[in-house]
Parts: sequence; structure tokens; C-alpha cells
Amino acid sequence: MSSTASRDAPIGIFDSGLGGLTVAHAVMRHLPGESLVYFGDTARVPYGPKSPETVRRYSQEIAAFLLEQGVKAIVVACNTATAHALPLLAETLPVPVLGVVGPGARAAVRATRTGHIGVIGTAGTIRSQAYVRAIHAEAPHMIVTATACPLLVPLVEEGWTNHEVTHLVAREYLDPFLKDEIDTLVLGCTHYPLLKPLIGEIIGRRVRLIDSAEETALDTGRLLADRDIATTAAIGSYRFIASDDPQQFLKLGQRFFGDAIEHVEVRTFG
Amino acid sequence: MSSTASRDAPIGIFDSGLGGLTVAHAVMRHLPGESLVYFGDTARVPYGPKSPETVRRYSQEIAAFLLEQGVKAIVVACNTATAHALPLLAETLPVPVLGVVGPGARAAVRATRTGHIGVIGTAGTIRSQAYVRAIHAEAPHMIVTATACPLLVPLVEEGWTNHEVTHLVAREYLDPFLKDEIDTLVLGCTHYPLLKPLIGEIIGRRVRLIDSAEETALDTGRLLADRDIATTAAIGSYRFIASDDPQQFLKLGQRFFGDAIEHVEVRTFG
Repeated sequence: MSSTASRDAPIGIFDSGLGGLTVAHAVMRHLPGESLVYFGDTARVPYGPKSPETVRRYSQEIAAFLLEQGVKAIVVACNTATAHALPLLAETLPVPVLGVVGPGARAAVRATRTGHIGVIGTAGTIRSQAYVRAIHAEAPHMIVTATACPLLVPLVEEGWTNHEVTHLVAREYLDPFLKDEIDTLVLGCTHYPLLKPLIGEIIGRRVRLIDSAEETALDTGRLLADRDIATTAAIGSYRFIASDDPQQFLKLGQRFFGDAIEHVEVRTFG
Repeated sequence: MSSTASRDAPIGIFDSGLGGLTVAHAVMRHLPGESLVYFGDTARVPYGPKSPETVRRYSQEIAAFLLEQGVKAIVVACNTATAHALPLLAETLPVPVLGVVGPGARAAVRATRTGHIGVIGTAGTIRSQAYVRAIHAEAPHMIVTATACPLLVPLVEEGWTNHEVTHLVAREYLDPFLKDEIDTLVLGCTHYPLLKPLIGEIIGRRVRLIDSAEETALDTGRLLADRDIATTAAIGSYRFIASDDPQQFLKLGQRFFGDAIEHVEVRTFG
């Protein structure tokens, strides 16, 4: 995997939909020479409420498709897919695979002073206990309080990132943390970075927010360097692929990606 | 189709998930002798934000599966699937097919006095203009105001059917109707019957709410009688099938179906 061809192969990044674009954009900013192939499973989004078996099946299909595109590594830019499918993918794929849970968990362990960490995510991510396991793998003595916030994804997708309703919903979900001793809160869903200002306002300044997208981008850089497969190119190229009609992707993608997305390919499954 | 076997064959009912259970329950109450096979596509729910092509592909797969189960008729108990796939299904399937849009539209035309009808639904249903077309097919002079309410489905699924947040969200969505002259509002999504009290409170008593589930059950009875395929049995039997793990279906199904659901089969696609 250390030939020039492999070094300059793209990184595959996938998510259930558009949320993983926050991860793709962080990778782009931190590793500007790397080329990316982003796949959003918009025809089957969201993964949050779905069963582990179904999410694993979808993830395997997408990983196989990304391998066909010649990727040198895969970033699972979806917390639910990471929670349910990362061990299986890491075991069965011929390229290195990185999820968003490990980087977020490790950053939280580094950041906390009190040893009490909060985690918010989708129903699937929280039910899987993936963050609790990942934090305890690093530091078994940590206290972890995790809670599911199912309405935050639809609210972000409605564009209500600073709406009175979203404040009310977030306050209700975050209420257990306000009485709690946490000093670090993991935003365990790729949609939540868009709610950082709102969540920060509710939770207060004494709590450090961990953005998994940023941490995953940094860990991706370390992984490529360790395996000696980092590109030597100056500027990468980007492909965006969706399983549903590209219109929604083009329309809403910029909200997550920051920059405009000009072209989206389509690849359906099943 | 008028043999005894066909008469006693079940009716197939499908939805993107659990919402169509409100339709199944209405059919059960109005036509207690009919047997039902209900399919909820919980592995790919929701259909609301997805493209017409994708919803058509999913609907065709499910209809083919229901035919394999020997159904004598199919009720598309999902507004989005009706909007995008009903014409195609009606044209290509060898059994009668009924959607939820026509019955709701016809009931609204019968109910209105002012000739101004409101419609609420998912983004996909509203964008498709299916209700506007169906109402105008009955009565071309009607004025129709339609608006998408994407957050109502996640709020119902969170169980917040009488929560302060849901009041705020519904008030914001229904605001255009409050200044409007509508006297009839079509609940154009199978989740909305669970919000009937809340919507009724906001919209006021002068506006009649049309529950598509009830109207579809009544039209199903008429269709079976017209085609001479109504059962002569006294009590029907019910099968429930999901494309994702049955636990969620068992847990949340009762909310929509009213009665307890004891057993759910699984059939995956793709």
C-alpha cells in the first residue's frame, strides 16, 4: 500500500445522509492534499432509529462500493454506523477503517478534568453504548452519562438551528447534564456541530464541547501517516455520491459541508 | 376474482413504517371480517423526504411481495407512496389498488362549505401536489392551500403528541391557515391522526379535520363491494411484517394501531 498509486488514491467517507459532510469538510481542511469520495445513503437515511443488523448490512454494501472506487482507507462518518458496523468492517475490509466514535471518545478523555463525560447522539448510537465502551477502553474510571436526542437531527434538517423550538427541545434533552457534574460533552452525531452555539449557550461555558468531526479528521491524518499512505499531492479532488435523487443533496449539502457542492453522482442499492 | 378463495384472501396494506397502522386499524374497525397483511418498510422509513423515483422503486418491491402473499387488493397506506407510486401500481398490478390521497380529497370536497381546503403533509406529499390534483379532479373550482410539516412525524414518533414543543411547531406550521379562509383541513399523513386534538385546538372548531385513515377504510369497503370481492367471514386474521428489526414495531406499533400487536414477521429487501 505504499506505491504512488495507493498514496494518491482517495479516502472513502460515508454516512447515512448529509451529516457526514461535516466530517468530510474537516478532513478537507486538515488534509488538503487528500482526495475524497463521499457517499451519502440518502435513499435509506436515517440510520439512527434502525436495528444494528440493518445498519451493518447497509454499511457493508457501501464499503464494498467504495472499495470498487479504489479508496485507500474508509472513514465511517456516521455515529450510528460506527457504533454498529465498525468492528465488522475493520475485520473484513482490506483497507484501514476509522470511525467517528473512537476519536471523539479519546478527545473527551483528554479534555475532562472532573472525569465525568456527557454524550449525546441518536437513539441507535446511545443504545449501542459505543461511546461508553470507547471511553472506558481508554480510561475505565471515567463516569459517562449518555442520552439520546432523536429530534435534533430533524430540527437541523429543517434548518431550525437557532429556532425557539430547538432551544426548548435541546434544553429538555440536556436537562440531566445541567444538574450533573460533567465538564465535557461529546456531540456524538454528525448533525450536532451545526447546533454548537445553541448547545454551548444552554450547557454553559464550563463544559467543553467535543466535535467528533474535527477529532476524526485529525485521527485520519495520523492513521495515513502511520500506515505511510498519506498523499504527496497539494490539492485533492472530491466526488460526492448519493443513493437518492441528487437535488436534495445539492440543496442542503452546503449547510453541512460549508462550501458549495456542484455535482452529485447517484448510485442506488437493492 | 369472485371465487370463495379470492373473497377470503387478505387485503395487503403497506406504509413506509408504522403510520399506516392508523389506516389498518380503521379498516379493521369498519371491515371486521377482512383479513389483513400489513407491511411496514421500517428499514427505509421515512419516505417523506425521498425522491419520487426511490419511493416508486420501494413501493413496487413491496407490492410484489404482498402479491406473493396472495392479497386480493392493496391499500397504499402512506401518503408519500400514494402521491408518487399509486398511478404506476394501479396500472401494473393485477389486483385493485387504493391510496390514501383520493379518499381524503373526496371527503374534503364533500365537507367544505367555503370551497377553501387546507392540506398538511410531509415534504414529499406536498411537493407532489397529489392532494391539489385529486381535489381539483373532483371539483376544479376549489381553492387549496397546502403546506409541508416535516417535524410532525418525528415529534409523534418521539411520543410528544401533547408536548409544549409540538404545540409551538404546529402553531408555526398552521399559521398560514389561521389567517386563511379554509373551513376544512386534510390531515395528509398517517401520523397526524395522533395529533388531532392538538391540531383541532390550534386551528379552531370552525375548521373540519379530515382523517384520511377513516376515509380510506370506508372507500376500501366500497371498492370490495363494487368488485364483488368482500369477504363473508365474520372475523379476519392479521399479519404484520416489517423490513427492520421487529422490536421497535412491537414497542411503538400500539401507539398507531390502538390495540396490542403480538407478533411481527421480518422481510428484508436489497
